[in-house]
Amino acid sequence: MTATSNSINNGRLHRDAPIGVFDSGVGGLTVVREIMRQIPNEKIIYFGDTARVPYGSKSRETVTRFSRQIVRFLETFQVKTIVVACNTASAYALDILEQTSDIPMIGVVKPGARMAAEVTKNGRIGVIATEATIGSQIYAEYIRKLNKNVAIYGKACPLFVPLVEEGLLEDPVTDEIARRYLTELIDIDIDTLILGCTHYPLIRSTLGRIMGSGVTLVNPAYETARELRGMLERTGMLNEEPPRLGGNRYQFYVSDKADKFVTFANSIIKYGILSAKTIPIEQY
Amino acid sequence: MTATSNSINNGRLHRDAPIGVFDSGVGGLTVVREIMRQIPNEKIIYFGDTARVPYGSKSRETVTRFSRQIVRFLETFQVKTIVVACNTASAYALDILEQTSDIPMIGVVKPGARMAAEVTKNGRIGVIATEATIGSQIYAEYIRKLNKNVAIYGKACPLFVPLVEEGLLEDPVTDEIARRYLTELIDIDIDTLILGCTHYPLIRSTLGRIMGSGVTLVNPAYETARELRGMLERTGMLNEEPPRLGGNRYQFYVSDKADKFVTFANSIIKYGILSAKTIPIEQY
Repeated sequence: MTATSNSINNGRLHRDAPIGVFDSGVGGLTVVREIMRQIPNEKIIYFGDTARVPYGSKSRETVTRFSRQIVRFLETFQVKTIVVACNTASAYALDILEQTSDIPMIGVVKPGARMAAEVTKNGRIGVIATEATIGSQIYAEYIRKLNKNVAIYGKACPLFVPLVEEGLLEDPVTDEIARRYLTELIDIDIDTLILGCTHYPLIRSTLGRIMGSGVTLVNPAYETARELRGMLERTGMLNEEPPRLGGNRYQFYVSDKADKFVTFANSIIKYGILSAKTIPIEQY
Repeated sequence: MTATSNSINNGRLHRDAPIGVFDSGVGGLTVVREIMRQIPNEKIIYFGDTARVPYGSKSRETVTRFSRQIVRFLETFQVKTIVVACNTASAYALDILEQTSDIPMIGVVKPGARMAAEVTKNGRIGVIATEATIGSQIYAEYIRKLNKNVAIYGKACPLFVPLVEEGLLEDPVTDEIARRYLTELIDIDIDTLILGCTHYPLIRSTLGRIMGSGVTLVNPAYETARELRGMLERTGMLNEEPPRLGGNRYQFYVSDKADKFVTFANSIIKYGILSAKTIPIEQY
């Protein structure tokens, strides 16, 4: 992470600038929710790529191309940092994004990996995520850098996102699908489970019930907001006071279906989201 | 449909030219399968928009923009006709596509609507499809043009596509979800059910079992291939003889993940698909 050097050296970054956050769609709002809770004085520009969602079944090249367009869009707001609030984009694109932009960035994978490496006692960590994130092996890679003696078991759970988007958060069908996906992780006796997709915290209670109380669920959204706070503090970029009224504190942009996004967003975030704007992301 | 006039008046269209077929992803292969069966002498260029799949949850504007790019791509092959093998694109974009291209086009909605209007006896027709197709009311509109005394009941079934893509074609979970979606159509006593999404023929047996033997399932893929054959015959564009060997009879293009596409395609189409090529569709 080049955050520290960039934010000190780059005179264009301002403390009162907004934080840019992006995701393939609505899932990243669970990260926004944590940022709002943990660092409430910050302005946020959110972008959800609802025209091209989902990312989790797509290739590294495609996810990287889409992510670069989004970074160029967020750069137009002179954001002081960018949170890649999508596990798939963090897994596939974060390295290249950091190389091609001056803005400090933070993904959701490293913070989640670090927490899992800290909390495991028996050294057996499970990761549930999209096909892309699991295929990239990125969680395993980061965790092993921190602790070579840990075993990591990845399981792709492609039906969780559509089930969440259909609102089946507490439902026998979601229970049944979760049981199928999680059985092998239970059998392997993991004691820590990373929720490696931003949608999964929304079915946290189902996952917790099936895994049992002996398994710690790690929500990278929470850890990412904590790490973001630390990064802003270290670099003198944390807003100490709330932004002035009328300053459009939270702005939401999408590539499609702004109305549907607003409805979903209001079910996740307590702060009432009044509107979202649709922009042509492929032109960036 | 401007097919007849176009194909007679436009000297650029050749009988031995390929047929262009496109879909948001793999679903349109059920239409390709029917075309291969019913008019085996034709060459086919297929495009699946796997980088931006699915279309069924996206807006009219977005689906139209994507579809126009695909038509421009297919035009580079001098195709003699274009089959819009995606219900959502047929519902949202076919009218505009026909206005902005000289190539005759055929969608999957009209053929399916016509068959349903013919086979219903009690005048109660159900349509299951994506959110977009149901929201467009296009099946109801077409069927009512043919028969004003018919009642049409639409039901969006957003989980069917992910369940099919996960391979749960015969599964208790798919049964349970299908029962929830179909119960109201059973209660309304429909006698005809249109499978208004190209993925749904792949769970035809589940749908048939739940609806019962008194309900006729209409597969627009079959009707579309039949209508395509009729259109080509009327305009003198049907190939009477098989294309010469070595002529790349069937060509498959996608916007992402060619390997995964080939695997799925080979599970749908008996003809072995050796390869698919990835192209940057947003540049068209």
